[in-house]
Amino acid sequence: MGTTANKQSLTIGLIPGDGIGVEVIPAAKEAILALGSDVPRPEFVDLVAGFECFTRHGTALPDETVRVLEEECDCAIFGAVSSPSRKVVGYSSPIVDLRKRLDLYANVRPVTSVATDPNQKPDVDLVVVRENTECLYVKQEELKYTENGKEARATRLITERASRRIGQMAFDIAKGRPRKHVTIIHKSNVLSVTDGLFRETVREIPTLAQFTGKYDDVEIAEQIVDSAVYRYLFREPQIYDVMVAPNLYGDILSDAAAALVGSLGLVPSVNAGDKFIMGEPVHGSAPDILGLNIANPLASIRSAALMLRFLGYVKGADRIDRAVDDVVREGVVLTPDLGGKGKTTEVVEAVLKKI
Amino acid sequence: MGTTANKQSLTIGLIPGDGIGVEVIPAAKEAILALGSDVPRPEFVDLVAGFECFTRHGTALPDETVRVLEEECDCAIFGAVSSPSRKVVGYSSPIVDLRKRLDLYANVRPVTSVATDPNQKPDVDLVVVRENTECLYVKQEELKYTENGKEARATRLITERASRRIGQMAFDIAKGRPRKHVTIIHKSNVLSVTDGLFRETVREIPTLAQFTGKYDDVEIAEQIVDSAVYRYLFREPQIYDVMVAPNLYGDILSDAAAALVGSLGLVPSVNAGDKFIMGEPVHGSAPDILGLNIANPLASIRSAALMLRFLGYVKGADRIDRAVDDVVREGVVLTPDLGGKGKTTEVVEAVLKKI
Ligand SMILES: CC(C)[C@H](C(=O)O)[C@@H](O)C(=O)O
Ligand SMILES: CC(C)[C@H](C(=O)O)[C@@H](O)C(=O)O
Repeated sequence: MGTTANKQSLTIGLIPGDGIGVEVIPAAKEAILALGSDVPRPEFVDLVAGFECFTRHGTALPDETVRVLEEECDCAIFGAVSSPSRKVVGYSSPIVDLRKRLDLYANVRPVTSVATDPNQKPDVDLVVVRENTECLYVKQEELKYTENGKEARATRLITERASRRIGQMAFDIAKGRPRKHVTIIHKSNVLSVTDGLFRETVREIPTLAQFTGKYDDVEIAEQIVDSAVYRYLFREPQIYDVMVAPNLYGDILSDAAAALVGSLGLVPSVNAGDKFIMGEPVHGSAPDILGLNIANPLASIRSAALMLRFLGYVKGADRIDRAVDDVVREGVVLTPDLGGKGKTTEVVEAVLKKI
Repeated sequence: MGTTANKQSLTIGLIPGDGIGVEVIPAAKEAILALGSDVPRPEFVDLVAGFECFTRHGTALPDETVRVLEEECDCAIFGAVSSPSRKVVGYSSPIVDLRKRLDLYANVRPVTSVATDPNQKPDVDLVVVRENTECLYVKQEELKYTENGKEARATRLITERASRRIGQMAFDIAKGRPRKHVTIIHKSNVLSVTDGLFRETVREIPTLAQFTGKYDDVEIAEQIVDSAVYRYLFREPQIYDVMVAPNLYGDILSDAAAALVGSLGLVPSVNAGDKFIMGEPVHGSAPDILGLNIANPLASIRSAALMLRFLGYVKGADRIDRAVDDVVREGVVLTPDLGGKGKTTEVVEAVLKKI
């Protein structure tokens, strides 16, 4: 993180993907362009991936896309992908593959509501830190034919190494926040070995860092995933600050979290590794609203800001976030998911004006 | 189901377990007793299981408990269990084990809000039908020590046989409801083999029954688990009627569903097999409120009703459910989780009066 902070120019890969990805990624681009000298001169590279790419080129993630990201880009923004509605031989989710190939081991998803009064704290202000490379996402599956019919097995992998680095990311993020509180999400009442390893490894982090005292001021709590969903969604979102979770729980938790802030169309993320950062709105490709110019561009715009923040361009990130907050707070130009009648392009324009 | 409908007496195992299980299970017993001749003469057998049982007897589920359930009981009601906060050698969740040992393959969790006007339909009225014996709950886990540290693996098992029988249960339940609609919950965009098998097997059910036309009037839809949580929790719970899900998704979904109806303290379930039915409130053992006489007894009471309904005692079940609905609707005597100031015992009394 912050490694590109002295560069003259910033090369940003844009991977709109499918569906409304194509409508919202340009918004992220324009927001960055509007920052002027608060970021190094941005250069954009258009890249392909997704289900449409698969139907055309036989692969959902062309090697060329990965190569350009690795060799030519400083960072990237990914839109969304559609999934085939039936099993399609050879198809594999490009976002899952990209996270692994670029070793983007953390999916950081801040869930923040917008306070009515700009001087007040938001009601909901938490960050889901999702492990991004293992758990059931290793996609090691096998099918057997037995006397009793078909039997399928998948492997759920949890390693100490991946749990430690995601835990460290969670502690680092918590350290930079006022509450400095980490909740470990697990299901070790059932998965005592795998989730047990995740839980113990994350719990150990402050002890391992005890000579530096680095995490001494960070509080740790833990919660079983099902009761976390119930408590956090509904009863006491304010008990959470940073939630760290294995891959699948993090996936479900962050969609659930969207319910807290009014719309998935507001929730940004970055996929972060030690060498590369890729912004990604949490929402999907929403083919049902494609072409209507009503997709909410704010999750994409916020993802651009979050990416810049991770790269060390805090001032630029702040300017974008404040502009988005203002537009939401005013409530004049909003897309239908937020109860408005605005068009995607109108919301983008409103944000650009404020930046 | 309905197999005990001609009996003279009904032997009901009571397994309060830990924490507030001990406070709410007596409420279920009293509700059944209040039905008089609408059920065969009930006989109750007190049985032990849980974490406290483990610390005393070295096992969380004594063989004797299982034997009595199998040989002497017609049905049972289970309270809740506490989980150890660290890994404890030899401990295994008794509820997970009991579901497997009695082959209670379906966990049926109706999530229903109470309409303000008794003649109106409730806002939320759906049933989560959760597979109860496999998925990650097979608890096949292993730990390896490697050069890079510890690596843990768990097996996620999905079989055609278990998917078919849970699917059939979901279709049977849907057939008995006005909307007759089943939504398959899966994540086959990532788990194409295991969740692919679940999805295809459930989808096939109407086709397999086509000569009888049994399920011709049931509609099928499907949804990816993360977007199901988002859509159903928050935006459009009314799009769902019966949701059928593999074990872990069903676990998380039903806790999330509780958010829709105001409190987990209202949500009942039954664990159902072809030969045995066991009621179980969806909430946990809540040790933090133990002994305060404020645990909500309604989930347990509703679980007793649901158990009776599955056994064929519809009239008795209806009487209990109507009494609970009336108490919630009146809103005079409610526990704190529902915003009231009532005690557990006062709520029980109010319900008993109405039965
Ligand atoms: C599209 C899908 C594979 C993906 C995931 O499960 O990670 C999505 O739900 C997400 O959250 O980014
Ligand atoms: C206690 C726990 C093992 C259990 C489960 O995960 O099934 C509980 O959450 C439930 O939903 O009944």
